[in-house]
Amino acid sequence: MQSTSGGGGQVSEKKKLTDSIIFKAGISILAGVIIYLLPVPQVLEHDPRAWRLLAIFVGTIVALIANPAPMGTIAIIAITLTVVSQTLSMGVALSGFSNAVIWLIVCAFFISRGFIKTGLGERIAYMFMAKLGKKTLGLAYSLIFADMVMAPTMPSNTARAGGVIFPIVRSLANAFNSKTEDGTQRKVGSYLSKTLFQADNVLCAMFMTAMAANPLAVEIAGSLGVEITWVSWAIAALVPGLVCLLIIPVALYKIYPPGIKETPQAAEIAKKRLDEIGPVTKQEKLMIFVFFLILLLWIFGPDLFGIGATATAFIGLSTMLITNVLTFEDVKSEKGAWDTLVWFAALVMMATQLNTLGVIAWFSDTVAQAVYGVNWVAAFILIAVAYFYSHYFFASATAHVSAMYGGLLAVAIAVGTPPMLAALVLAYFSSLYMGLTHYATGSAPVIYGPGYVTMGEWWGFGFLFSVINIVVWLVVGGLWWRLLGLW
Amino acid sequence: MQSTSGGGGQVSEKKKLTDSIIFKAGISILAGVIIYLLPVPQVLEHDPRAWRLLAIFVGTIVALIANPAPMGTIAIIAITLTVVSQTLSMGVALSGFSNAVIWLIVCAFFISRGFIKTGLGERIAYMFMAKLGKKTLGLAYSLIFADMVMAPTMPSNTARAGGVIFPIVRSLANAFNSKTEDGTQRKVGSYLSKTLFQADNVLCAMFMTAMAANPLAVEIAGSLGVEITWVSWAIAALVPGLVCLLIIPVALYKIYPPGIKETPQAAEIAKKRLDEIGPVTKQEKLMIFVFFLILLLWIFGPDLFGIGATATAFIGLSTMLITNVLTFEDVKSEKGAWDTLVWFAALVMMATQLNTLGVIAWFSDTVAQAVYGVNWVAAFILIAVAYFYSHYFFASATAHVSAMYGGLLAVAIAVGTPPMLAALVLAYFSSLYMGLTHYATGSAPVIYGPGYVTMGEWWGFGFLFSVINIVVWLVVGGLWWRLLGLW
Repeated sequence: MQSTSGGGGQVSEKKKLTDSIIFKAGISILAGVIIYLLPVPQVLEHDPRAWRLLAIFVGTIVALIANPAPMGTIAIIAITLTVVSQTLSMGVALSGFSNAVIWLIVCAFFISRGFIKTGLGERIAYMFMAKLGKKTLGLAYSLIFADMVMAPTMPSNTARAGGVIFPIVRSLANAFNSKTEDGTQRKVGSYLSKTLFQADNVLCAMFMTAMAANPLAVEIAGSLGVEITWVSWAIAALVPGLVCLLIIPVALYKIYPPGIKETPQAAEIAKKRLDEIGPVTKQEKLMIFVFFLILLLWIFGPDLFGIGATATAFIGLSTMLITNVLTFEDVKSEKGAWDTLVWFAALVMMATQLNTLGVIAWFSDTVAQAVYGVNWVAAFILIAVAYFYSHYFFASATAHVSAMYGGLLAVAIAVGTPPMLAALVLAYFSSLYMGLTHYATGSAPVIYGPGYVTMGEWWGFGFLFSVINIVVWLVVGGLWWRLLGLW
Repeated sequence: MQSTSGGGGQVSEKKKLTDSIIFKAGISILAGVIIYLLPVPQVLEHDPRAWRLLAIFVGTIVALIANPAPMGTIAIIAITLTVVSQTLSMGVALSGFSNAVIWLIVCAFFISRGFIKTGLGERIAYMFMAKLGKKTLGLAYSLIFADMVMAPTMPSNTARAGGVIFPIVRSLANAFNSKTEDGTQRKVGSYLSKTLFQADNVLCAMFMTAMAANPLAVEIAGSLGVEITWVSWAIAALVPGLVCLLIIPVALYKIYPPGIKETPQAAEIAKKRLDEIGPVTKQEKLMIFVFFLILLLWIFGPDLFGIGATATAFIGLSTMLITNVLTFEDVKSEKGAWDTLVWFAALVMMATQLNTLGVIAWFSDTVAQAVYGVNWVAAFILIAVAYFYSHYFFASATAHVSAMYGGLLAVAIAVGTPPMLAALVLAYFSSLYMGLTHYATGSAPVIYGPGYVTMGEWWGFGFLFSVINIVVWLVVGGLWWRLLGLW
């Protein structure tokens, strides 16, 4: 950008970008205005705020999809609009910021920083690698295991798969001379990249705290009367999740085989790296302690001590601050947490208020009348699959969950699907569909970017695993959920 | 720290530090435990949560004063304790995060970043300097004017006086060869440093949004039934504030005279620097627009459009994000804002809940009985002055306001002081007392640090101006408030 010769081109480039932003913002505003101008249903006529809020909400969702600005900017503008339009009081507009589920995820962001800061995440990966890394297949499983250990307390899949594990994939690929520059990427780089990516999306589905949009689904389900807890989420996901995690490395090994199958050096590299890292530090031991403390309290806290998931996260965070595993400087600098706080608060606040003002009830009633008498099994499978593949049109699970999760869940419940079953399946699909494209979630461009996997392979295998995921979760999951009494 | 020879010394240093932290933390815990073990007053016996919350609150306040950890860490531990002790539900413990006054100050942090990012703050300083900077006295006023322009929308005095204006003082001092290394600091550096510091504390008192602890006082006053608005704060502070701002540079000019009195070069330097900066950019124009928009809406919004101070701040922030004066990246990176959000939310939540659980009413009633029949004028002056000088024991206005503002305000009201008068005077003093020491507030160590002013001078003049401030605010302010009908 230092040359001035291309100045004219840059100006027109810049103008193009500005035009595109204005166009995207324009569409979002237009969507809101159209809703606002539509005739208000009779049941909502008594309170004009209901329809106004719906207009702002739809405009916000369209903006999240069209993406003229970062989510946080859109969220702040949405909050401002609800107040300036006299739709909500300032206090109500800010109510999302004190939502307990939001703070669960915000705290999880802080806690997960500990894995990165102490180096524990990296150590775990190399430990698994030293044990299992003698073959490429074992290497793949060892990366997945390491990812899995972090998943329950690390809600940013970009940080987890993209930030902690993928750098190890890259350094491994380099060590085996598997490079994108000279066409040797297929040796190990391609296989490990794709396996990591597909498996991580399954991990996102397995724990409420493994992906930032999961608690958003929980909140929306809660506003429809379905209360999902951390434990009920994890138990229902356990069996189909593990089956998928077992299948993915093997399936890709067959259909997308790595050029190098034996990797005795990898185990050596891991051992050498572990030697370099040295013995487990006090900070890492504390991190391990906090990790188990949180996990145990998440599982047993609610029943044994009356301590909920968010309180547990606060206990974990406090412990890390007291023991100096984290400093408050780390907390203040954790941009992902503050980002999530802002967009999450705006979306949850609007969803809650749409419910309070009767919009959700009106929508559910309308849908229920339209679908009266339909067979719920067929209808729900249709809904779930449609929800899954609509992710081709989304660049963020959050935008997708905000836009469609609540509406489709209401429809599913209206046709007679057992509410908890419907809420969980749609929530799991909200992670699983991230495997479809190279823009589907934050970790996708990170892992796709270096070029180990071609666009065709990414999309092709993405589609293949979407089918495998859907079948496993609906069939194996279906049986498991029957056993659990969910339907 | 690279040499190993001092290793033993470092270890013992580190141990000393750890011991000191443990000691400070121990005192804080002890304070809470002592309160917890005291006999519970009869009126509070029906709900054991009331006394438990008081114990946690007192422990927190002692920790803010003893300072074993950053405020944010203490705040997170306090929130955790309220929940783990089953004193408050998670939802209530988080309620502070949706407090509108907190978001006023958080948004003001974001907005004030615009002054720094666009360079507008610096430009304003040099513009005043170019006009008034031919003499050292004029130079002092020009710095104060520039500081004053930023004060209403910039709640971090450390960023404003320490970050924007003080660097200009240093570069001026260097330009006039007034250096701390060779004993020439008195030429201009000493005078300008001390003037800036004393004047900035007055500016902190003049606007609700000029200092982070101001809205905390407003919130606490609100919980005692005294509703202070942005405008009522500013009007009542206007006259005594301006009188002090006029006095400070002249008074220091007489008693702490700069060696150089004529500074024609300063005006030249300013003009040269303005030439270097170039014409006002589009970003700066937008910043000016936002500044006036916010100021006008703060003044006229509530009455004309029903738009409160926080909604106005959101409008300002949205405008800055839409026009790209700020990016959301700037928002996420604004650590001061997130820091303030956390400690503020914890303190306001506890203060509110102490009120809800009846602790404040019990305290006020007890005090009212004890002071029945006392002359309120004498009593209030005593209370206010005692509050002022107790700041010798505090390193943060926030800690001081949290610890004493509410209690003393309750006492002042109990003896018969008009509530609004009492609330405002104590709030103003919460800024004015920051002039006392070199650790009294965040900007103090920044400006004291380089050594232009000796410790003796800092404390001596600090005391002198404390007397001047108290007399001006109580006498001139007293007359002005009589005129306004506050008493």
